[in-house]
Amino acid sequence: MLGVWLAPKIGQRLEKTPLVRKLGAFVALSGTELSVLDALHKRRRTFVAGRDLVHQGQLDQAAYILISGWACSYKILEDGQRQIVDFQIPGDFLGLRSVLLHMSDHSIEPITDIEVTEVTVADLLDAFSQTPRLATAVFWAASRDEAMVVEHLIDIGRRAAAERMAHFLLELGARLSLVGLGSKAGFACPLSQYLLADALGLSAVHVNRVLRTLRESGMVTFRDGFVTFDSYSRLTEFAEFDPVYLDHTGPLLR
Amino acid sequence: MLGVWLAPKIGQRLEKTPLVRKLGAFVALSGTELSVLDALHKRRRTFVAGRDLVHQGQLDQAAYILISGWACSYKILEDGQRQIVDFQIPGDFLGLRSVLLHMSDHSIEPITDIEVTEVTVADLLDAFSQTPRLATAVFWAASRDEAMVVEHLIDIGRRAAAERMAHFLLELGARLSLVGLGSKAGFACPLSQYLLADALGLSAVHVNRVLRTLRESGMVTFRDGFVTFDSYSRLTEFAEFDPVYLDHTGPLLR
Repeated sequence: MLGVWLAPKIGQRLEKTPLVRKLGAFVALSGTELSVLDALHKRRRTFVAGRDLVHQGQLDQAAYILISGWACSYKILEDGQRQIVDFQIPGDFLGLRSVLLHMSDHSIEPITDIEVTEVTVADLLDAFSQTPRLATAVFWAASRDEAMVVEHLIDIGRRAAAERMAHFLLELGARLSLVGLGSKAGFACPLSQYLLADALGLSAVHVNRVLRTLRESGMVTFRDGFVTFDSYSRLTEFAEFDPVYLDHTGPLLR
Repeated sequence: MLGVWLAPKIGQRLEKTPLVRKLGAFVALSGTELSVLDALHKRRRTFVAGRDLVHQGQLDQAAYILISGWACSYKILEDGQRQIVDFQIPGDFLGLRSVLLHMSDHSIEPITDIEVTEVTVADLLDAFSQTPRLATAVFWAASRDEAMVVEHLIDIGRRAAAERMAHFLLELGARLSLVGLGSKAGFACPLSQYLLADALGLSAVHVNRVLRTLRESGMVTFRDGFVTFDSYSRLTEFAEFDPVYLDHTGPLLR
């Protein structure tokens, strides 16, 4: 619907960014709002896989909008254990939560090489004052992020290992579909079994066993960097996956 | 600093609300911002303990600002298990996350009788358009809520039962202190062992045993509706509690 649009500051035609696709699921974005969003994409930066771009305890950090590649946010406990809080895909904010806190409460690591744009608190305040609807859309994206963290809490607190993995893969598939990077057939996935283990509170050996069980039951196959939903409907039923918390049912604000 | 202020719409002098105290930790609120916040406190309602005010799956719900009493947000899984996501205390929003989603992804239950004010999406948009700084302050509060959910994820994923309980009680103490309802000495706490169990992923019997261990080690006592920090410093060290994620270090925006 939005198609290709003119970026007034840069004066060149741009494909709509993953963030525009994503926020478009919540707000029918106006020309003004698209311009303000575009202005947030000024300071492009790249980061290489495996080197943190935000450190737990860092002061006055910026936030980033992920344009391409995958990242993860995580915390390290004093005994060295790591808990991955969430993975970020194109269109997601990195560190949006802590841009408003004095100090980052987590680290962010690129899983692949990534391209981002940097966003400061001042940028956000400026954008919000130009268009409160955009503030609400960013708020929606943050609410959705929080809903995902809540689901991960449920994953770890209440779901058995196989259901946990199934739920997680279905959520990733739905998120990627929203930005055009996945479907009910499957999606390309750069996550290692170690990353899955740190996210789901399992050992890497356990992850391997769970993935084999899910594959042998004919529901989902994760192999060679690709997740294939062999039976999307059976997997959904098995995981009790109800994507309502991802709120993909179309613009609420028109 | 803010003291008692005049509420222009109602024309009577009001004590500052818990929400004003809380947001004041992030933004040095101007007269205009205080008026806009006050206008959000128009529709007062009360709810009795134990009867949900928001249901999982509910459409088009409002959000609420909690003025007095305690509540909890939770999810029920299909097998009937319950996971409490968080507790809310005065000054907290109830259902802020899902006011922007089409459907509530969780339920909210008053733990005590509570007094709230109702806030709709339209109210929020209106307030944000009047003062973007307030939008940022509400965003800050939501970021802080998410940081707490992340800590609960860490609690359940990576902390042993006693550390988990200790961390949880310290967090509650810090949150209550911010709104004038607690201190490093302790706080009044209406939570039952069943509620603690559903929040921390433990059985009620296990909760009882953990609380006894913490009491006998001279760190904290939870008895007769009151949590007493017998040794705040030892408990903090034991739980590896670093309150930086609660962001109480003073206004970021002046």
